[in-house]
Amino acid sequence: MAEVLVVGSVAFDNVETPFGKVDDVLGGAASYFSFAASLFAPVKLVGTVGADFPEEFLGWFRSKKVDLEGLQRQKDGSTFRWVGDYGYDLNVANTIDTQLNVFADFKPKLPESYRDAEFVYLANIMPALQLDVLEQVRKPKFVGLDSMNFWIGNPDTKAILSEVIKKVDAVFMNDAEIRQYTGSYNILVAAREILDQGPRAVLIKKGEHGAVAVSRDGVFVASAFPLESPQDPTGAGDSFAGGFMGHLTQSGDTSWAGIKRAMAYGSVVASFAVEDFSVRRLLAITLDDVRNRYAELQKLTALEAQLLSST
Amino acid sequence: MAEVLVVGSVAFDNVETPFGKVDDVLGGAASYFSFAASLFAPVKLVGTVGADFPEEFLGWFRSKKVDLEGLQRQKDGSTFRWVGDYGYDLNVANTIDTQLNVFADFKPKLPESYRDAEFVYLANIMPALQLDVLEQVRKPKFVGLDSMNFWIGNPDTKAILSEVIKKVDAVFMNDAEIRQYTGSYNILVAAREILDQGPRAVLIKKGEHGAVAVSRDGVFVASAFPLESPQDPTGAGDSFAGGFMGHLTQSGDTSWAGIKRAMAYGSVVASFAVEDFSVRRLLAITLDDVRNRYAELQKLTALEAQLLSST
Repeated sequence: MAEVLVVGSVAFDNVETPFGKVDDVLGGAASYFSFAASLFAPVKLVGTVGADFPEEFLGWFRSKKVDLEGLQRQKDGSTFRWVGDYGYDLNVANTIDTQLNVFADFKPKLPESYRDAEFVYLANIMPALQLDVLEQVRKPKFVGLDSMNFWIGNPDTKAILSEVIKKVDAVFMNDAEIRQYTGSYNILVAAREILDQGPRAVLIKKGEHGAVAVSRDGVFVASAFPLESPQDPTGAGDSFAGGFMGHLTQSGDTSWAGIKRAMAYGSVVASFAVEDFSVRRLLAITLDDVRNRYAELQKLTALEAQLLSST
Repeated sequence: MAEVLVVGSVAFDNVETPFGKVDDVLGGAASYFSFAASLFAPVKLVGTVGADFPEEFLGWFRSKKVDLEGLQRQKDGSTFRWVGDYGYDLNVANTIDTQLNVFADFKPKLPESYRDAEFVYLANIMPALQLDVLEQVRKPKFVGLDSMNFWIGNPDTKAILSEVIKKVDAVFMNDAEIRQYTGSYNILVAAREILDQGPRAVLIKKGEHGAVAVSRDGVFVASAFPLESPQDPTGAGDSFAGGFMGHLTQSGDTSWAGIKRAMAYGSVVASFAVEDFSVRRLLAITLDDVRNRYAELQKLTALEAQLLSST
């Protein structure tokens, strides 16, 4: 069975939302991605943690059959940490503190068994590291990439990011990031500018407003599953990407139809991720839960066929 | 054939967006509503304009068979005027000036031929006027209502608004308004609080992010049609309501299925309204244009059936 490789942060998070507050919980883009993708396909994780990273968290990855051979455990130093909060508008994260810690001199080295991965996700880290990882994979079939304002705003890192973007199949950005990267306000226009640089698909994440995919074959609009009590949006974007890449890995269908289907599953998986703090909800759900909610989302969004009569 | 009655503003607008600037154009909630609804069903307009209101604009209404018997033309005084602008985020309107003019002492008096209207839309005006109009309609089958922060924020007008809401079938509000009215941040929770006050449906407008309908029968999420070059979002909400009420009037189907279908058409009509300034685009389109875009929206949003295999 095909596998999906992810490189990105594994972190301690301190998060406060209007619905609660947690400290020292498992966070990081690669964590959310792994649990989301593992619903569909085996995952190989590339990242680094410090000596303070608890055995309990490692056990969670193992329970979901996430391969940790590529997770470097530093004897010294602390695990990456993110501290942030949200107001009632959960679409707006406020970063209070970011401590790179062991991530500051992370040198990803892929185990031999990782180098044949066909599906690869470059989560949001320094673009040079994304490039480094991508170059170690022999013949990827489909590569997804995420980034953030910090790398886009600096001309040096943006130049490297642009190099990586040329080599990937799908770019995942939120609406603010794609506007910042291209300088175009309209997200469809901005997406087409990125397509011109090489990728086959641009997936624009709009949080509670869903996601829009743009390819040379068309546009696809995926509504977010409406939730009555979201708790914590941290990791929603990476859970979306995990559901997407996981489904794509399982189906092997990288056509536009396959991309649209994977995106809808990504949207459903992300809706679970925000229903609790940290990765709790992702750890608790099964593929059946995902399939049931997908069916519900179909019902909530289906536009009926038009009646044939005209006035 | 059933008809739809609308009461609301007919106005001169001065609008500036990043894509252009217009002065003294036809605006007002009842104008946008009328042209949108007239795509589907005959419209009867209740409102008032000043002596300065040009014959040309009246001709536009007549060309769409909008009944103007209920439009009071004051010999003195000026037409209602709205001056506003938008930045690149077209979801955020900035009101620079509002001149009530003849609207300040408007006393709606329905012509006898209007009093048997089955479908009624109370556009955003002073709640006491909405109540006054509603009481003049003998036996409405389906009543929709819009309002705004100005009336919700004042305890006196909010009290009257609450009286009107008890008597209507559908409440149209944007996400900010429904939060302000109920004090609940989550739009599903807020919508259910409004349902508890009487209405059968709450239609939450989210601009470029689409709309969500909530009833006792379920939730429906309508994506906005993605546009590459929206020009002016003024009137989008009233065009949405016009498409909705017009379709409902034409179909006569006020079941939850009928409401969902009408809402999808409302969303499509609104997408046309924002493609040009003022009511220009609404005047130019036909029902065939609406039906074609509805079919396109179906394609852009359709979630495929799940494959039966499980992992």
